Amino acid sequence: MEDERVARVWLSGVCEPGDVSVWRMVKALGAVEAVAAIQRGRVHRESGATEKKVTGWGMRAGAFDLEGALFICAQYGGRVVCPGDAEWPSTLDQLGESAPLLLWVRGELDLRAVCLRSVAVVGARAATPYGIRAAADLGAELSDRGWTVVSGGALGIDGAAHRGALAADGNTVAVLASGVDVAYPPRHEGLFAEIAAKGLLVSEWPPTAHPTRPRFLVRNRVIAALTRGTVVVEADLRSGALNTAHHARSLGRQLMAYPGPVTSLMSRGCHDLLRASPPHTRLVTGVDDVLEEVGPIGEGLDRPDGRPILPRDHLDPDTRAVLEAIPAGPRGTPTHAIAAAASLDLPTTRSRLALLAATGFTTRTRTGWRLNPPT
Amino acid sequence: MEDERVARVWLSGVCEPGDVSVWRMVKALGAVEAVAAIQRGRVHRESGATEKKVTGWGMRAGAFDLEGALFICAQYGGRVVCPGDAEWPSTLDQLGESAPLLLWVRGELDLRAVCLRSVAVVGARAATPYGIRAAADLGAELSDRGWTVVSGGALGIDGAAHRGALAADGNTVAVLASGVDVAYPPRHEGLFAEIAAKGLLVSEWPPTAHPTRPRFLVRNRVIAALTRGTVVVEADLRSGALNTAHHARSLGRQLMAYPGPVTSLMSRGCHDLLRASPPHTRLVTGVDDVLEEVGPIGEGLDRPDGRPILPRDHLDPDTRAVLEAIPAGPRGTPTHAIAAAASLDLPTTRSRLALLAATGFTTRTRTGWRLNPPT
Repeated sequence: MEDERVARVWLSGVCEPGDVSVWRMVKALGAVEAVAAIQRGRVHRESGATEKKVTGWGMRAGAFDLEGALFICAQYGGRVVCPGDAEWPSTLDQLGESAPLLLWVRGELDLRAVCLRSVAVVGARAATPYGIRAAADLGAELSDRGWTVVSGGALGIDGAAHRGALAADGNTVAVLASGVDVAYPPRHEGLFAEIAAKGLLVSEWPPTAHPTRPRFLVRNRVIAALTRGTVVVEADLRSGALNTAHHARSLGRQLMAYPGPVTSLMSRGCHDLLRASPPHTRLVTGVDDVLEEVGPIGEGLDRPDGRPILPRDHLDPDTRAVLEAIPAGPRGTPTHAIAAAASLDLPTTRSRLALLAATGFTTRTRTGWRLNPPT
Repeated sequence: MEDERVARVWLSGVCEPGDVSVWRMVKALGAVEAVAAIQRGRVHRESGATEKKVTGWGMRAGAFDLEGALFICAQYGGRVVCPGDAEWPSTLDQLGESAPLLLWVRGELDLRAVCLRSVAVVGARAATPYGIRAAADLGAELSDRGWTVVSGGALGIDGAAHRGALAADGNTVAVLASGVDVAYPPRHEGLFAEIAAKGLLVSEWPPTAHPTRPRFLVRNRVIAALTRGTVVVEADLRSGALNTAHHARSLGRQLMAYPGPVTSLMSRGCHDLLRASPPHTRLVTGVDDVLEEVGPIGEGLDRPDGRPILPRDHLDPDTRAVLEAIPAGPRGTPTHAIAAAASLDLPTTRSRLALLAATGFTTRTRTGWRLNPPT
């Protein structure tokens, strides 16, 4: 299986993610044989691959430094997550032939676990102060309610949503169109460092890969597929956020949009979504509306017997230590008290608490964290 | 028939408009006999009238000065419009047992004709500058497109919509919860004078009647019934505009609402309408959206052969003179040139042009007015 994983890494650097013909070759031949076929210059016609495409892959194969990519990944403590891994979010497989072959992940949280209760908050780069404020508020409020905020790491709405989640000590995932070591936009270098430390940076492209316009669009389907719903906070008529909205709708995810002043160009894309007929998009004005759409905490996530989706035994030792350090009772215990009881440092405790909330073990209160009743 | 009309005037002053039992008595007995029954203190049980109600009517009958009401009406050049009159808007009969028994009307336009292409623009009294601006813009743009703006004459959104229509030299109708000679709110005395001169003031209550809270609500059904659709521009959660919206929906009229910032209390009523499930309310952001909902000019109004709904021969002499003074051709002719050609004064010409636009004969252009192609 290690060969299969290395082959997928090779494909992520040589073939462009989202290319259906590559997915089909891997499905038909396995990743190892797909790589061998491409290296031999063989055109696997049933997959839809063309001579021209195979020639292009050949040229890029010479330029891709697989060992270098894995070395950089190891340096920042990153990892590669593949379908079948415990951390692989199975919702991605709903993308069918355009599902990712792997994800490069940077950060300590468990990708699958944090995305179980996640919402995408996306929008215009050239957002207005109104939109920035709304996105940051929503990011913070989703965090307070134990939901993970997924976005694209762009300027404007995306950045505000991530920052809101971070400010509320919540989980946030940035799905990038570049390597997870590349700060694009450069102005977000500090934000990405913070997300890497407290949340997750995720990409289909290997380290050092730079974003292109098509890559942003290809990336959007992952944002839509990872989450239970997508909220467009502000979008002009040509905003890339509308592309994410389109993916969310095709995947059967909840699609939501914020209203804004009719005089604001940056709300026109949202209003167009809301006016579309038949209506696929729900108007939302805050976290309560959003959670009404994606379902109250736990709905559809907890098992029928009401217990959390992840068995307690499957938690890693630090997470279990944090869970066991939370006293029973309805009142919230402050993070520092839990950290002290678990004999863990504050950052570790915070990230484990967020994971426990995302997986249904705990709930945030005004004063800290409490255990969910076992029901 | 004159007796029937006078009896309805008496009922408008003695019984509260919107009272279903009065409507049923008139339906069963005719207005003259209904008045006689009330004067004799007879309780017409089948109508749902009660002893208590009849006693109340008896007390009010002593206080109502019918001749005085008709005298005041004559002084301001007003009139009473009853079902069956050429000017009676037949859409009001869709209110069934809560249909008005008559309307007191002040102004020169033909009520039925101007309401054929009309939209209600309503909203909060405590409107924000954003809402005021949006309502005034919509009022002016509806006027420019040949549509009549109907509203309730209140402070805030209502007043802005009327003023927008007046500023664009369009038709506007204020449906009041007081006599059409009563300036309520007092701050709108000048606005009502302008509407009386260029548009129409309409009420179910006789001259000198003052508004009460229930009367505002009873009045709202007339605003909804007169128009093809209702636009709520701003409304807080308890706004009376939501009551008008409710009537519009029950009558099968188009119901529309403006979005606004999620942080604005004055948009909360609109957002609630837009979020309701199933969605009865369409989000609109301007005149194009509104006309898309209520149908393009002429749709459903023109006869199947494409000719205007009112035959040319049925126009009054002044209106016909104005129509004949408009030269053929695609370019607009200025109002003053039409007035000169028709040998009429400017105010008369303006009101006739507005009527011709509302009934499908003419269209406003940047430079003036042109005839609609006969098709």
